[in-house]
Amino acid sequence: MKIVTLETDLMSKLNDSSVEIINLRRYLHQHPETSFHEKRTSEYIKNYYHDLGIETKNFGSGYGFVVDIDSGNPGKTIGLRADFDALSIQEKNDLPFKSQNAVVMHACGHDGHTAYMMVLAKTLYQIKHKLHGKIRIIHQPAEEVSPGGAQSMIDAGVLDGLDHVIGAHVMSSMPTGSIGYHRAETQTGRANFTIKFIGKGGHASMPHLSKDAIVAGSYFVTALQTVVSRNIDPFDTASVTIGSFDGTGSFNAIKESVELKGDVRIMKESTRRIIRQRIEKIANGICDMFDVKYEIDYDDNYPVLFNDPDLTNQVIKSVENANIPEINKIFDCGPQDPSEDFAYFAQNRPSCFFYIGCQTADGANHPHHSPDFLMNEDCLIIAAKAMGAAVLSYLN
Amino acid sequence: MKIVTLETDLMSKLNDSSVEIINLRRYLHQHPETSFHEKRTSEYIKNYYHDLGIETKNFGSGYGFVVDIDSGNPGKTIGLRADFDALSIQEKNDLPFKSQNAVVMHACGHDGHTAYMMVLAKTLYQIKHKLHGKIRIIHQPAEEVSPGGAQSMIDAGVLDGLDHVIGAHVMSSMPTGSIGYHRAETQTGRANFTIKFIGKGGHASMPHLSKDAIVAGSYFVTALQTVVSRNIDPFDTASVTIGSFDGTGSFNAIKESVELKGDVRIMKESTRRIIRQRIEKIANGICDMFDVKYEIDYDDNYPVLFNDPDLTNQVIKSVENANIPEINKIFDCGPQDPSEDFAYFAQNRPSCFFYIGCQTADGANHPHHSPDFLMNEDCLIIAAKAMGAAVLSYLN
Amino acid sequence: MKIVTLETDLMSKLNDSSVEIINLRRYLHQHPETSFHEKRTSEYIKNYYHDLGIETKNFGSGYGFVVDIDSGNPGKTIGLRADFDALSIQEKNDLPFKSQNAVVMHACGHDGHTAYMMVLAKTLYQIKHKLHGKIRIIHQPAEEVSPGGAQSMIDAGVLDGLDHVIGAHVMSSMPTGSIGYHRAETQTGRANFTIKFIGKGGHASMPHLSKDAIVAGSYFVTALQTVVSRNIDPFDTASVTIGSFDGTGSFNAIKESVELKGDVRIMKESTRRIIRQRIEKIANGICDMFDVKYEIDYDDNYPVLFNDPDLTNQVIKSVENANIPEINKIFDCGPQDPSEDFAYFAQNRPSCFFYIGCQTADGANHPHHSPDFLMNEDCLIIAAKAMGAAVLSYLN
Amino acid sequence: MKIVTLETDLMSKLNDSSVEIINLRRYLHQHPETSFHEKRTSEYIKNYYHDLGIETKNFGSGYGFVVDIDSGNPGKTIGLRADFDALSIQEKNDLPFKSQNAVVMHACGHDGHTAYMMVLAKTLYQIKHKLHGKIRIIHQPAEEVSPGGAQSMIDAGVLDGLDHVIGAHVMSSMPTGSIGYHRAETQTGRANFTIKFIGKGGHASMPHLSKDAIVAGSYFVTALQTVVSRNIDPFDTASVTIGSFDGTGSFNAIKESVELKGDVRIMKESTRRIIRQRIEKIANGICDMFDVKYEIDYDDNYPVLFNDPDLTNQVIKSVENANIPEINKIFDCGPQDPSEDFAYFAQNRPSCFFYIGCQTADGANHPHHSPDFLMNEDCLIIAAKAMGAAVLSYLN
Repeated sequence: MKIVTLETDLMSKLNDSSVEIINLRRYLHQHPETSFHEKRTSEYIKNYYHDLGIETKNFGSGYGFVVDIDSGNPGKTIGLRADFDALSIQEKNDLPFKSQNAVVMHACGHDGHTAYMMVLAKTLYQIKHKLHGKIRIIHQPAEEVSPGGAQSMIDAGVLDGLDHVIGAHVMSSMPTGSIGYHRAETQTGRANFTIKFIGKGGHASMPHLSKDAIVAGSYFVTALQTVVSRNIDPFDTASVTIGSFDGTGSFNAIKESVELKGDVRIMKESTRRIIRQRIEKIANGICDMFDVKYEIDYDDNYPVLFNDPDLTNQVIKSVENANIPEINKIFDCGPQDPSEDFAYFAQNRPSCFFYIGCQTADGANHPHHSPDFLMNEDCLIIAAKAMGAAVLSYLN
Repeated sequence: MKIVTLETDLMSKLNDSSVEIINLRRYLHQHPETSFHEKRTSEYIKNYYHDLGIETKNFGSGYGFVVDIDSGNPGKTIGLRADFDALSIQEKNDLPFKSQNAVVMHACGHDGHTAYMMVLAKTLYQIKHKLHGKIRIIHQPAEEVSPGGAQSMIDAGVLDGLDHVIGAHVMSSMPTGSIGYHRAETQTGRANFTIKFIGKGGHASMPHLSKDAIVAGSYFVTALQTVVSRNIDPFDTASVTIGSFDGTGSFNAIKESVELKGDVRIMKESTRRIIRQRIEKIANGICDMFDVKYEIDYDDNYPVLFNDPDLTNQVIKSVENANIPEINKIFDCGPQDPSEDFAYFAQNRPSCFFYIGCQTADGANHPHHSPDFLMNEDCLIIAAKAMGAAVLSYLN
Repeated sequence: MKIVTLETDLMSKLNDSSVEIINLRRYLHQHPETSFHEKRTSEYIKNYYHDLGIETKNFGSGYGFVVDIDSGNPGKTIGLRADFDALSIQEKNDLPFKSQNAVVMHACGHDGHTAYMMVLAKTLYQIKHKLHGKIRIIHQPAEEVSPGGAQSMIDAGVLDGLDHVIGAHVMSSMPTGSIGYHRAETQTGRANFTIKFIGKGGHASMPHLSKDAIVAGSYFVTALQTVVSRNIDPFDTASVTIGSFDGTGSFNAIKESVELKGDVRIMKESTRRIIRQRIEKIANGICDMFDVKYEIDYDDNYPVLFNDPDLTNQVIKSVENANIPEINKIFDCGPQDPSEDFAYFAQNRPSCFFYIGCQTADGANHPHHSPDFLMNEDCLIIAAKAMGAAVLSYLN
Repeated sequence: MKIVTLETDLMSKLNDSSVEIINLRRYLHQHPETSFHEKRTSEYIKNYYHDLGIETKNFGSGYGFVVDIDSGNPGKTIGLRADFDALSIQEKNDLPFKSQNAVVMHACGHDGHTAYMMVLAKTLYQIKHKLHGKIRIIHQPAEEVSPGGAQSMIDAGVLDGLDHVIGAHVMSSMPTGSIGYHRAETQTGRANFTIKFIGKGGHASMPHLSKDAIVAGSYFVTALQTVVSRNIDPFDTASVTIGSFDGTGSFNAIKESVELKGDVRIMKESTRRIIRQRIEKIANGICDMFDVKYEIDYDDNYPVLFNDPDLTNQVIKSVENANIPEINKIFDCGPQDPSEDFAYFAQNRPSCFFYIGCQTADGANHPHHSPDFLMNEDCLIIAAKAMGAAVLSYLN
């Protein structure tokens, strides 16, 4: 069967599910669960499949699972990934379907990812015998934490037999109707560290008998600025942020120890190594300077998300060719600051991760991870159609 | 009556009360109350006096009160001050009379001050007709906080009619049997401040969209070091300590605001002004540098404790002349780092504040304000006798 | 006439001048003159043209001039730019044609630029009637200083009537035989500033009577690190360097003033504005912090060198199509750190600036602006041919 | 003979020399020589003695010498020290006897020290047989540099047989007619250091390929502020000043190395050790932080000048008792910030160094070491008489 006819069929079926896709998303939005605690979310999605007579298969130590769609025809195998965890945020939106769980919210749009993927999976399952090769729908938990759900599923073999992986993320900074993409390095890699400087406490009026940990920590923060300003190629990308400086104490006592939490972003693995080395050397220097000690827990986590240029070209070409009426713009959006644990899939298989605009209105500002995050739900059918077009083109 | 005979009488009576003085102190030690919450402590002391038929009179907004001892003979009026509040510390000593109140402890020795003063007051009351002039025993609450109990009693007129004031403090860093003193500036004056730097929060990977309050606070701490190192005469005394840096947050968010608490010690009021001006100018500079705002709550509290040289000479001479057998050393101990709200009395009347060694053993280290603070209770009778000798000499 | 035939003719004529091109370069190398002092260099080049009966025309306040080559046929007008100034460096190479002038050296390769351009101009002049449109050869002085020679020639109208400008630079970091290029933002824009902090001098033992300018300058340098680390998008490019800190004084005196020189590089004009604003705000902050004053002389000089994508595509395509045997690699070399005053031409006309590899051997390290800078002279004929191919294609 | 009669005799003789003392000082003022280059000054003073038939004896590697005055009677031996070097300063005063040597000036008053001592020595020599014991007049070179002239004379044995040493300094900050003194630690001890941080130079636009020595040096200066602010007892005295930061370079190059000169002042030898250790640890820390190296040349030079309390009491009492009419005030002036190499004598013998007010008028400000230093020459006869009274009392 020709792709065009197949596509017409798929798009038609997706259109028929346009209400369902929104209902699924709203149900998930009302019942968010945080990373690694998505027991009910996982059961809800599985039940959806089981009711349709579709089997699921668990992978990894969390609540992750897959749906395998086998065309019965020879061909390649593609993985499609959607994540389903929520954040520890108290929703501030006043929606009929607002979060029913205190201080838990789908503030990143994973509810949407899961909803469109469920409907797309159902639809692809219905037409599977017209396809070639196989599709593995990867429902992943715990994208928001480190180490996240991807690594555990990969360790359990979720990528065995897969040729490529595709994923997508709704983006509240891009207009609804737009599709963004970038080739090669596309989202930052990340490291996090906790560093404790340990001096010696004492009375504020007798500094010479103490070793002031707040002073040590403060000079550390100022010296840390040189990592980006002096040690990184100006054409490279890096950030080093101290997000937490816990030196809470009292007026009249010199603080014995302080604990800082840091965040590092990079676009090249070599840069990751330079930064780590510099941070540890600066910490060493601080210890000499102020006669203190340090303890560090340094966690190199998310890799740089690398979009395979060939696969990305193919995916974007497919979406363009599909002439999906709801899509009015497909553009290279450049690399994106945040990190994403899809990067682990992309580290193991040539992959493509692209973006579905979901902005509620021109200029609207409901950023991801904020308590007033909002999406234009039109993005859901767009996501399903764009991903569907990419899959059909890839397999046939 | 000659002072010598009077002194013999007083010392003899105090010796007779040597067990009582310890029992009183132990009762107080078992029942500590924090500053401005010393309701029961105050009642306990008052009851002691009332049982002896001695009247008390409240002063100020706290639980402070006085006992007036009028000789009926013409003469000067002297105030003797003892403080009775405890600290929010969990006692770690294993004593039969250890604190019965959780996280409250007489870790500074005010229990001892009060105990010796009660017995001394009783004794002076007994011999009052042999004296000249008047004595006002000032039982002061809330020495440990700012604004403390002294100012409130002074505002209520506790010093009306007084010529001079004398006070004493037990000192765990000085051997028991020793009396320390210093003339003129004797304990540091103090200021405290809370400063908040307010920037703009954001995602750790996008520093250019935020104003990093931790960075602002850290540079503030480093610049603050120049106040003492560059703006203060090396022959002068000053310290500026940031005792608290509350910038507690998460790895991946840039902190919107941080709150720091600072402590300033000085030995001259002109230095106090220089430091305050410098701190505020540095905070201004930080705001320009990092495009943040600041809010400061600056509290100039304890004055420098100034010991009137003439009165101090007289007090020390009296103690020397009394030949108190338990005292083996009277020495100029130099100025002391901590601040003390007796300074408010000394600001209003020529005063003398001296020190009663209470170290438990040679080299023992049980510092004030620590959970294992200990005193050698022999210091109590010494305190009573030394203060008694000073009073007799002063009045007669 | 077909381009292919024309090209064959041009290449053949250039091959015939392959010894001349080297001799010209060596003469220039032996007789270097620094920026705005290139009187003899300029005369030497002009004499070369005049001996060939080719007129020259001065532009600007320096020694810059042009050669106009008019085909007599209708068409576009293209500018070709070569710079001819040298640097204040003492040559360390032991060459038969080493610099004869003390502390002046062609350490950047402008001798090569001029030599290949003279021969290319001569050759184009010889075949001019076979071309369309016009060519203006721009011999520019003073590329190495700010404000450089380009602006002055532009102010004098050197670009009047020109449609586009092309330039090239030899690159010792690229293998000889390679041609590098980049589209859009290609070399950094630049600003320079001199900032003086003025405090109050005094005796080292009495810091409180002084305002320490070295301390002010040092904190300024540390705060300056945050401009790149916190105020610039990690995906953007910027550097801020203090290249000079003149606080030279004596051991026992506090320094009254210090003078710093700074260098700023950017790839976007909006970034230029952010950095300037931040630097001035940080300087303001320093003045509050340390009670000093500042004077700044801030010079926004070189723009970002922007390569017109269309012209760049055309130039590179021409070079590829010419199949020049000495060229074995044509590659997108990405943006380059240094700044270049060709950027002023590119600011006024769609332009293209590309790179001619001149590395002496694989791995050889003779960097530009170093006293041992070396070029493989094979690059000269390559430059002439590549530029020649671009011009023929452009005009015909 | 009674001291009173002797004193009357001495004072009378000194009065007779009151014009001579001024002439001597003016001659010296006109002919200043810098430290260790005082050849003619030394000869001039020696000739004065030789013309009087008084022998001189050289000590040490410089131009220092002594005059020994032996009473022939048993007794103690006292050293009296006067220094005679000048400074590299261009005099700005318009005096009839202004310095005739370019950029050399007696801007510290050593001309006065020498003049009064010459006349006093002559006078004591005249009355020597009425005295007991011996006097050694120590004419010392090179007080202004480190290592100065004192140490060399001491190494050569100048103190052999001496019991005590006395010296004096004119003080332009004290009114003429006043005598200042202090017991025990009286002038600061000093250390000086030169520290070089060595990184790696490079192009300003490529910081990642360099190691920025200016950044290293600047963070060093900021960290150095903590030595005084955090490591020194607020009741102790210390200063650490960077008086020179030589990082002079160009706009567009990252500086390879910087050289800093530092000055340290202390009042306790234990503080000296703490500071040195801290400075070296901070330099170590800087090297870790910024991947640079350092070289330090650390010179512990002047000791704290310690005035023997007993001798000081005796000297001051003698001056008081002498009722010298020109003296209207004798006061404890407290410790003084500058350092003084008389401290070496005081390190080896119980000594006393006191101050002779020489202010030209009330409120006049002509500080030592400034090009407009001025003294009221009335101080000279006061110095001679005060020192004379001290000597008579000491010996008899």
